[in-house]
Amino acid sequence: MSESKGRVCLAYSGGLDTSTILCWLIEQGYTVVCFLANVGQEENWDEVRAKAKKLGAEEMVILDLQQEFVDQIVFRAIQCNAIYEDRYLLGTSLARPIIARAQVRVAEQYNCEFVSHGCTGKGNDQVRFELAFKACNPEIKVIAPWRLPEFCARFQGRQDLLKYAADKNIPVSSTPKAPWSMDDNLVHCSYEAGILEDPNHTPPKELWTRTVDPQDAPNTPQEFTIVFEKGIPVKVIVDGKETTGSVELFKLLNKIGHDHGVGRVDIVENRFIGLKSRGCYDTPGLTIARLAHLDLEGLVMDSRVRELRDQFVTISWSRQLYNGMYFSPEREFVENSIIFSQQNVTGEVRMMAYKGNAYVLGRKSDASNLYSEADASMDSLEGFSPMDTTGFIEINAIRLKKYGLQKIKDGKPLTQS
Amino acid sequence: MSESKGRVCLAYSGGLDTSTILCWLIEQGYTVVCFLANVGQEENWDEVRAKAKKLGAEEMVILDLQQEFVDQIVFRAIQCNAIYEDRYLLGTSLARPIIARAQVRVAEQYNCEFVSHGCTGKGNDQVRFELAFKACNPEIKVIAPWRLPEFCARFQGRQDLLKYAADKNIPVSSTPKAPWSMDDNLVHCSYEAGILEDPNHTPPKELWTRTVDPQDAPNTPQEFTIVFEKGIPVKVIVDGKETTGSVELFKLLNKIGHDHGVGRVDIVENRFIGLKSRGCYDTPGLTIARLAHLDLEGLVMDSRVRELRDQFVTISWSRQLYNGMYFSPEREFVENSIIFSQQNVTGEVRMMAYKGNAYVLGRKSDASNLYSEADASMDSLEGFSPMDTTGFIEINAIRLKKYGLQKIKDGKPLTQS
Amino acid sequence: MSESKGRVCLAYSGGLDTSTILCWLIEQGYTVVCFLANVGQEENWDEVRAKAKKLGAEEMVILDLQQEFVDQIVFRAIQCNAIYEDRYLLGTSLARPIIARAQVRVAEQYNCEFVSHGCTGKGNDQVRFELAFKACNPEIKVIAPWRLPEFCARFQGRQDLLKYAADKNIPVSSTPKAPWSMDDNLVHCSYEAGILEDPNHTPPKELWTRTVDPQDAPNTPQEFTIVFEKGIPVKVIVDGKETTGSVELFKLLNKIGHDHGVGRVDIVENRFIGLKSRGCYDTPGLTIARLAHLDLEGLVMDSRVRELRDQFVTISWSRQLYNGMYFSPEREFVENSIIFSQQNVTGEVRMMAYKGNAYVLGRKSDASNLYSEADASMDSLEGFSPMDTTGFIEINAIRLKKYGLQKIKDGKPLTQS
Amino acid sequence: MSESKGRVCLAYSGGLDTSTILCWLIEQGYTVVCFLANVGQEENWDEVRAKAKKLGAEEMVILDLQQEFVDQIVFRAIQCNAIYEDRYLLGTSLARPIIARAQVRVAEQYNCEFVSHGCTGKGNDQVRFELAFKACNPEIKVIAPWRLPEFCARFQGRQDLLKYAADKNIPVSSTPKAPWSMDDNLVHCSYEAGILEDPNHTPPKELWTRTVDPQDAPNTPQEFTIVFEKGIPVKVIVDGKETTGSVELFKLLNKIGHDHGVGRVDIVENRFIGLKSRGCYDTPGLTIARLAHLDLEGLVMDSRVRELRDQFVTISWSRQLYNGMYFSPEREFVENSIIFSQQNVTGEVRMMAYKGNAYVLGRKSDASNLYSEADASMDSLEGFSPMDTTGFIEINAIRLKKYGLQKIKDGKPLTQS
Repeated sequence: MSESKGRVCLAYSGGLDTSTILCWLIEQGYTVVCFLANVGQEENWDEVRAKAKKLGAEEMVILDLQQEFVDQIVFRAIQCNAIYEDRYLLGTSLARPIIARAQVRVAEQYNCEFVSHGCTGKGNDQVRFELAFKACNPEIKVIAPWRLPEFCARFQGRQDLLKYAADKNIPVSSTPKAPWSMDDNLVHCSYEAGILEDPNHTPPKELWTRTVDPQDAPNTPQEFTIVFEKGIPVKVIVDGKETTGSVELFKLLNKIGHDHGVGRVDIVENRFIGLKSRGCYDTPGLTIARLAHLDLEGLVMDSRVRELRDQFVTISWSRQLYNGMYFSPEREFVENSIIFSQQNVTGEVRMMAYKGNAYVLGRKSDASNLYSEADASMDSLEGFSPMDTTGFIEINAIRLKKYGLQKIKDGKPLTQS
Repeated sequence: MSESKGRVCLAYSGGLDTSTILCWLIEQGYTVVCFLANVGQEENWDEVRAKAKKLGAEEMVILDLQQEFVDQIVFRAIQCNAIYEDRYLLGTSLARPIIARAQVRVAEQYNCEFVSHGCTGKGNDQVRFELAFKACNPEIKVIAPWRLPEFCARFQGRQDLLKYAADKNIPVSSTPKAPWSMDDNLVHCSYEAGILEDPNHTPPKELWTRTVDPQDAPNTPQEFTIVFEKGIPVKVIVDGKETTGSVELFKLLNKIGHDHGVGRVDIVENRFIGLKSRGCYDTPGLTIARLAHLDLEGLVMDSRVRELRDQFVTISWSRQLYNGMYFSPEREFVENSIIFSQQNVTGEVRMMAYKGNAYVLGRKSDASNLYSEADASMDSLEGFSPMDTTGFIEINAIRLKKYGLQKIKDGKPLTQS
Repeated sequence: MSESKGRVCLAYSGGLDTSTILCWLIEQGYTVVCFLANVGQEENWDEVRAKAKKLGAEEMVILDLQQEFVDQIVFRAIQCNAIYEDRYLLGTSLARPIIARAQVRVAEQYNCEFVSHGCTGKGNDQVRFELAFKACNPEIKVIAPWRLPEFCARFQGRQDLLKYAADKNIPVSSTPKAPWSMDDNLVHCSYEAGILEDPNHTPPKELWTRTVDPQDAPNTPQEFTIVFEKGIPVKVIVDGKETTGSVELFKLLNKIGHDHGVGRVDIVENRFIGLKSRGCYDTPGLTIARLAHLDLEGLVMDSRVRELRDQFVTISWSRQLYNGMYFSPEREFVENSIIFSQQNVTGEVRMMAYKGNAYVLGRKSDASNLYSEADASMDSLEGFSPMDTTGFIEINAIRLKKYGLQKIKDGKPLTQS
Repeated sequence: MSESKGRVCLAYSGGLDTSTILCWLIEQGYTVVCFLANVGQEENWDEVRAKAKKLGAEEMVILDLQQEFVDQIVFRAIQCNAIYEDRYLLGTSLARPIIARAQVRVAEQYNCEFVSHGCTGKGNDQVRFELAFKACNPEIKVIAPWRLPEFCARFQGRQDLLKYAADKNIPVSSTPKAPWSMDDNLVHCSYEAGILEDPNHTPPKELWTRTVDPQDAPNTPQEFTIVFEKGIPVKVIVDGKETTGSVELFKLLNKIGHDHGVGRVDIVENRFIGLKSRGCYDTPGLTIARLAHLDLEGLVMDSRVRELRDQFVTISWSRQLYNGMYFSPEREFVENSIIFSQQNVTGEVRMMAYKGNAYVLGRKSDASNLYSEADASMDSLEGFSPMDTTGFIEINAIRLKKYGLQKIKDGKPLTQS
């Protein structure tokens, strides 16, 4: 019997692709330790475990990473209102660093020289996983079968995979494959490829798994309250019942969003890999939490800090996560600012979910003196001299008057613009 | 009889405040030319005209500015996805420059040395109006009664205004005043002050005038299509019926949004004048048009251009408009970029409105080659060598591996982060 | 004898302006506590003290603030390479917060209800001082004589001041006043107004006080080394002699810069107050330290962190200081990032000063693994596969090829651009 | 005789590397058309031509690109004050797009299917060339020998090249190779690699080719004037003699800078390819022109336009050029802003060069009303009411007072900060 080429830690989902990769790696002479991260997706864990062992994996390691996922990343996304290209809440991107880091930990624990995954060669995820692998363990080697010419040549389509599965006794699910691919975690489910590649093809009703169709949502709105401390949700109150614990309350927000159809997005986005692709996402809890957080910041955050944060921090952090740069000096640099910005973001937001939307009903906070009813009131002049505004306007007008005069001189008066 | 102190062009709405100012200016010895801009608000124009003349205005000039409002500003806002503090679509801010410029034109036409308005001394609008006045005509003088000590001393509350109205035979509307103030134009209606000053007080159902309550909206969604050319909506198609003409189609979008309760926002925002204030806005048509435009850009705009545009142009233009800097060199500078960025933003977006939300159903364009089903497809490798990605990842990983190594050296390996 | 109108803490320099203000305040019925900050300027402290007492000041408080000036602000400027409009090293702006805060401390200690200063009504300094006063003590009241109509009316020109001085027995310096105004501190001396108001008038040779004319500087260059820890200069080595201590080493850099004519700048800048003004500055030590710091960052700072820092942090902090927003939430927010960015900025830079310029001769650091001779070497392929670059280029080219194809399709091929 | 594998357009300099590549390509069965761009470097053109033909090139095409280099790129760099990482004026980066575009034109003219170059596999230039090739002609194929395993294996060091030269009768220069590599064009000469790889090794005196050592520069300063129109230098006046014509005047600026030792920079920079490298550059004319342009903008450009331009346009354009993204939609987008920003940048700047430095002596312009001696003057209050500043300060202080109060409430008063 020949010696092993080495030990590989494979990200294994139990599906046809990674099962094929598992068998193929063994066939190539590797010893394979399978790894599956529980980041909140739907999964039959025992079945995956049994399948991996049956197919020859030396080990099948399953780790529940939900707590660190929520605490280290999801809540950071909430704190900075993370969003990519104005629309995408980054559900997949957020989970990748947590999974990759855990996979490296497992690889190290089991003395694997290699890590492997089943990502395709055109997507963002290969980049996210591998950049994280290499940052976490700069010595580790990556086997990316879908970028290996010999693998691609052998498995040119689904038929080749199915044939191989039959040869290798890989159990194949009898439920027909959906005509799109999905990625599911605590934050969202994404849908792309297949019929969705036509950007004008409306996603079918049955596609969405994490949210009820708004048209089927209850006719009665659901009210609830989210309590934040330093920008982090610490309590959700529904019908007088309080839920705490980061994972628990996030799941509750998911449930509210799910039931009321909140958080569906259908976009064409720009991948890191220079291509555009169409993605549909349902992201119930994070959509709600982000809106509430944004609203609370309106009440308590200084305007200039917000300007800087919006323009530089939110955009940078979001892009870093999207591009797989979580384990990077620049993400650390930006995250330091996020945390600093949240010192006074403490208070609560009353909300309502109804047929596809979340609405803010009101908000309050004791943490900041920036909003004051007396100051805001048009009726009160307490501590404010309106005459000051005259000077403020005059000074701001200095430049603008010169601009207007120049336009007149140039024969293009602004009145005729 | 004494000579006039000069001629004032007063922005006159027919309400109690500006009627008081009209009489007071005449009392002070000014000749007053009243001006009212039609920017799409609800108004009984004849009544306002009659009232002004009755109270002693030399002239009452009413101008329909809807066309220039939509063409010069609203559509520019759509082209750059304008938004302030992530939430506010700037409805009031967009109308101000159009009104102020027209008021200066009227002032010049009627040889007025002064312009006047009824804005309070704590708000944004005084700044927006006056900066625009001064840029459009650097010689013009402003009378801002609510910042004049003698005026403020005389009219300390609504009771003083009502008493003065009785003395001067100023007709006062018999409908009781809403416990908040409103500003209405083609784009939105804003609600602030009064009971809304408590940011935790939910706006009452009857507050919203431009949108049906989502809960009362039809149970059947409305589908429609918006066609864009160079970032500008040029056609709206509903049930096979095409509407063109900028004002007409924008009103149609308003109607769709109105009927389906789309575009309500309730926020605490940061005024230019260093204060926070709470505002509620319903902005039906612009909410829909902005979403459609954003979506189409996903399909046709280059990713790096979009990055630059989002981070610098959109944020800058929005802030400039909010702060009353429309007539400024910097707005001109930024607007030049907006137009340049829209060269390929041509195509159409299919949408649906339903119970408070607008949804994108699909989009298409012939104007750009950036999206390609073949390229995006995970199944096709046409013109793409997945092996290239390996190199792309390796090069991107150079810095990150050094980062990971440094962390290990510092005793804080990323695997344990 | 009438009662005092209250106690005023006056920023007193001993010059004609503030001596006039001192006497005038007393004349108006105030009790005056004079305050003079030692931020490193040339001054005859005893003479100022004697003069203030002679003119009727209740107290003359002189505080040496050099240490906090250097440690809290000057070194922060070095850490972020602060610069305004690409040219101005902010010498005056840096000192203002330190002086204003100390003045408020003195005001509080002596129970002064008011603070006062001699800044003119068109400059930046009034804004910087007063914003700092109001942030440090929001209750304190400001008397700005040069913005008081009664004061301005009385003192319309230098002749009025001299006449008043004669009346009040205010000693007036017999040296003729330079035809420009100056502001001197540890960091720089600024020159503006007077003959400099013509931006085409070259500053006369005798204007510059903090630097030798480059043409008169020694023919022999001076070499020296600056050692940094976390972005802060901690040691300067000249001819084998080590100087430590923040104030001491900064003064030594000033001396080197002075002797070799380093750090002269002559610009037209944009004041916060909407006006342009012409300023000349000689800033010897900070010019040198900034260059050294910038150079060291090249060696040790991650490129992406630097991008973010350059574009957002440096520009923001510099503008905040220029505009008098030191005591602000946004400065605190940005400063937190500065400090975070400097963790590895440890090492030393060898330099040379010669006839108006400072040059970097070399640099080294043990704090970072980012620069590696082996990596950088074109001759070595250690740990680097040049083939990877092919993939990197291919992936980056995806968008650009589409761009080129579109141009061809549009009949404007890039080859003919 | 076997058939050609196709025709290659090779960027040929006449040096050992590209001569080896030329012979090797022929050996591999390609027909080779050599191309050399004249972008202002020192070169014996006839010798290069003869050598290429002698070694078997089908053609040797030499094109003078100086005019388009200066007009299309160098002057654009001046217009936006381009700079990379605060220090590097981008000399090499600026020339690359011009050269690459011309090479593609030649390739097309001579029916070459391939383009080839001698860039190493770790540098920026390969990326710049190839991205430009692929944008200009998306069908063209690239042969990059220094990234081909077979080529690298054969030529592992200079000895292998010399041996091959001997075998192939490639003439080798008898002057010993400098222990660093150089790249020369109209804008600068760069020096890197070899002994410069130690960042603490001071460049030897003889390294610099484009500038006299400041210590050897004349003892007499040289005064001159640069006249700009819309941000572009259109005339240089030295001792009463006027020079116009873009290439001519730029060469004159180079001469002034050369003679007086202006424009030396020695830095460690961040390559696009994730590595740091040390580069020395002497850039005489552009250093002078950039300083003059920056200075004129101080006089004539609106402050807010400048803020936006500095923060977004200058930084973006510089980074795009450095990273080889000249032929990209984002560069086109940004360049549109550059041109728009320069409408009033018309005027002249008087300067002086002396021993390593350029100094501004004065500037004037009729194109803008933004600077006004009367406005700037501290002595004049024409058209300015200093009392307005009081209001301006008060309004700006609103936020800061709240900040100060919050600090007091938190037990951390700013006076004790």
